[in-house]
Amino acid sequence: MKNCPLCSAAGGVLVAQTSHYRLIRADDASHPIFYRLIWQSHVAEFSDLSVPERLLCMEAVATVEQVLRQQLPPDLRPTKINLASLGNVVPHLHWHIIARYDWDNHYPDPVWATARRAPDAQQLQALQAQLPALDAALQAALAALAA
Amino acid sequence: MKNCPLCSAAGGVLVAQTSHYRLIRADDASHPIFYRLIWQSHVAEFSDLSVPERLLCMEAVATVEQVLRQQLPPDLRPTKINLASLGNVVPHLHWHIIARYDWDNHYPDPVWATARRAPDAQQLQALQAQLPALDAALQAALAALAA
Repeated sequence: MKNCPLCSAAGGVLVAQTSHYRLIRADDASHPIFYRLIWQSHVAEFSDLSVPERLLCMEAVATVEQVLRQQLPPDLRPTKINLASLGNVVPHLHWHIIARYDWDNHYPDPVWATARRAPDAQQLQALQAQLPALDAALQAALAALAA
Repeated sequence: MKNCPLCSAAGGVLVAQTSHYRLIRADDASHPIFYRLIWQSHVAEFSDLSVPERLLCMEAVATVEQVLRQQLPPDLRPTKINLASLGNVVPHLHWHIIARYDWDNHYPDPVWATARRAPDAQQLQALQAQLPALDAALQAALAALAA
């Protein structure tokens, strides 16, 4: 699709992909554990997918969620996982998968709200240090799902 | 679950329900076409569901989305559907299903962001007038899905 930024570029750090979807890591300074599951074909809405495609898509989203819940060390376990398919700005189906923490600068509001507090540099650095291992675990889990 | 507002009350205008989930209409003055698909059991995260439960849940979400896309008269067709499972405030699994319009007071930002403009009273009134027919169509579509 011409002029669609998710058709013309990966949209972030590419972590894994199949012919149906790809997982990228977004670059969000306040929320380092922020991934997007992007459907490879250009469709706007979740209900544009067929039933088997929806199942495939959401099992990939659930797999990412499970890795975020299970892979991190106990003191960095997310308080909550946030999932969202919005697409108002880029109407190409993509799921935001975000690990939220009770100390993050928007919590308990959505990450799109006005921040409630300053970012916690030390905690953010601890999360940043986990990203290589987390990316590797996500890659392995999605490869197992697709196998 | 004690102290969970979605275990102790419907959480909005009850539109339809099965033993697994219920659909309620939220009361959002700026976004009248705002529904929530609430899982009946108290689980916090989407990945707490089994694979068949996830399929059931997301087929219900997709059914609601399809009705919102198809049921409204052409001049009131949503610009975009927004789906989200956040649960930071109430960690009981529920999906927000929101019809968005390019004239709504947050568009293209998520509804949780700071409003960009004043609400359009005339358009909102036109949407409000559609709610009884929309609720009935949703009820019928979810009954057909569960049949």
